[in-house]
Amino acid sequence: MLTQDAQLQLILDLVGVFVFALSGGLVAVRKRLDLFGVLVLAGAAALGGGVMRDLLIGATPPVGLSDWRLVATASLAGVVTFLFHPGVARISKLVRILDAAGLAAFAVAGALKALGAGAGPMTAVLVGAITAIGGGMLRDLLAGQVPEVLRRELYAVPALLGAAVVVLAYRMHHLTETVVWSAVALVFVVRMTAVVLDLNAPTPLRTGDSA
Amino acid sequence: MLTQDAQLQLILDLVGVFVFALSGGLVAVRKRLDLFGVLVLAGAAALGGGVMRDLLIGATPPVGLSDWRLVATASLAGVVTFLFHPGVARISKLVRILDAAGLAAFAVAGALKALGAGAGPMTAVLVGAITAIGGGMLRDLLAGQVPEVLRRELYAVPALLGAAVVVLAYRMHHLTETVVWSAVALVFVVRMTAVVLDLNAPTPLRTGDSA
Amino acid sequence: MLTQDAQLQLILDLVGVFVFALSGGLVAVRKRLDLFGVLVLAGAAALGGGVMRDLLIGATPPVGLSDWRLVATASLAGVVTFLFHPGVARISKLVRILDAAGLAAFAVAGALKALGAGAGPMTAVLVGAITAIGGGMLRDLLAGQVPEVLRRELYAVPALLGAAVVVLAYRMHHLTETVVWSAVALVFVVRMTAVVLDLNAPTPLRTGDSA
Repeated sequence: MLTQDAQLQLILDLVGVFVFALSGGLVAVRKRLDLFGVLVLAGAAALGGGVMRDLLIGATPPVGLSDWRLVATASLAGVVTFLFHPGVARISKLVRILDAAGLAAFAVAGALKALGAGAGPMTAVLVGAITAIGGGMLRDLLAGQVPEVLRRELYAVPALLGAAVVVLAYRMHHLTETVVWSAVALVFVVRMTAVVLDLNAPTPLRTGDSA
Repeated sequence: MLTQDAQLQLILDLVGVFVFALSGGLVAVRKRLDLFGVLVLAGAAALGGGVMRDLLIGATPPVGLSDWRLVATASLAGVVTFLFHPGVARISKLVRILDAAGLAAFAVAGALKALGAGAGPMTAVLVGAITAIGGGMLRDLLAGQVPEVLRRELYAVPALLGAAVVVLAYRMHHLTETVVWSAVALVFVVRMTAVVLDLNAPTPLRTGDSA
Repeated sequence: MLTQDAQLQLILDLVGVFVFALSGGLVAVRKRLDLFGVLVLAGAAALGGGVMRDLLIGATPPVGLSDWRLVATASLAGVVTFLFHPGVARISKLVRILDAAGLAAFAVAGALKALGAGAGPMTAVLVGAITAIGGGMLRDLLAGQVPEVLRRELYAVPALLGAAVVVLAYRMHHLTETVVWSAVALVFVVRMTAVVLDLNAPTPLRTGDSA
């Protein structure tokens, strides 16, 4: 069963951890934090979503604290970001691209792991989305900036979509590696399209007076 | 035993989820967020407290992610808020009323569920209060505003009070549906009285110089 | 086995809870919050780190909600802070000293408890650091200020160091009470030295243009 495939799970986790760590490190660089601030934000962004996932499905201690490969990847990405990073002006754009890649890997990794732990379809989709959103949310809360998920382009939607594809394929007994990576690609493409086009979801009508 | 009464637990959870989702959605509307931002804040406010409760008592996955009725109620309330909402100027007042109702339902629901999971009296009271406070706190942190619990009127006190009433009745073997709903009413009335009268708890004496 | 020593664990927890509660209470006083705001921030700072630790190692309900001695200590420290506190101008300095003491007690308490729960060495070190950092982080997020861990002096490093000493001694079968208290002292001294000297970790080179 693909949901028991530890290697695929690990690869998805590693990809998500790596790119989210870069995103957290870059946010820290933009805030002029020192090396340890960079490592803290890199670690929070990289490991936060997976820790939340594992707490939600009762898998303690979370793999983000017990698998040295994930911890090493997050730390390494933090150090790399600290040493080599673009000018501050270009960081915002880069953070969004990396964040989109992490969103994609973690939405699928979260849904897969929840399915493997016996979660029902809705729970697996929601856990996937929280895995994808959680790390970036923690990063943004700590850094004192508006969470990416509340900005104007589609963010939670592609995460839910990617998780739903995996869950649907699982229920139809068609969960192959190709499906998994297609779901990852789907999340990334939808998210990046939204960022590039600044596709907005509808906003509430402004009724009454403004505050 | 009333603590095993799944239907009463569900009704309390549904009430709390519904009104907290409205509160989260309204905060999002006031911030001019789009439909998905409204749904994210509605979901965080509505399901956050119950998810924290279930993590604290080891009930994974949390019912807020596994019971479709709760998820559907939160989503529906989010959409309703998005489509129909008062003018922005009137939202703040409405948020406080809804928040008080959610506080009441969740303080009792949290204490009941913790008792049912075998928690001791003090733990049940504290878990009840965290259930009541958690969702609004998450909503306010994400929205970048001062958490309701740190504003000036009584907030944690009515939540602790309502949870304590339920726990006391349980210990005295007098936990009836009437007691449960009276505790809910008590929390709501105390909280709303505090809001209306702006009843302040004592503030520290200002000694020394100010910063 | 010292990791099973409930009394030592309790003493470390009590010390950490007490000083972190004072720090949270003082932050609330500086923000001119009322008695209940003081108690909420005192409780969040004092019990937050231990609750996170217990969730991470699957020990539910967390001892911070189930052991009356910890809850009473946090409440008492909150009330004391409310009644007797220095002038607001001197609070910031005092918060940092108390925070350093809590960091020290909790880094060691967290690592010890994780080892006792069967966690591997890396996990125990990370859980220790999260225990130490978590409460202060929650306090600062709720109070709307930059988390201590992202300010410029060494903060996560002494926590990791103290936890690592305990874990190393455990692995070498040399975990004595002397080692435990030396590790606590080490964390406190390193942190206070960093605060006093404002020892900065390296900051990233400013390449490119600034934002």
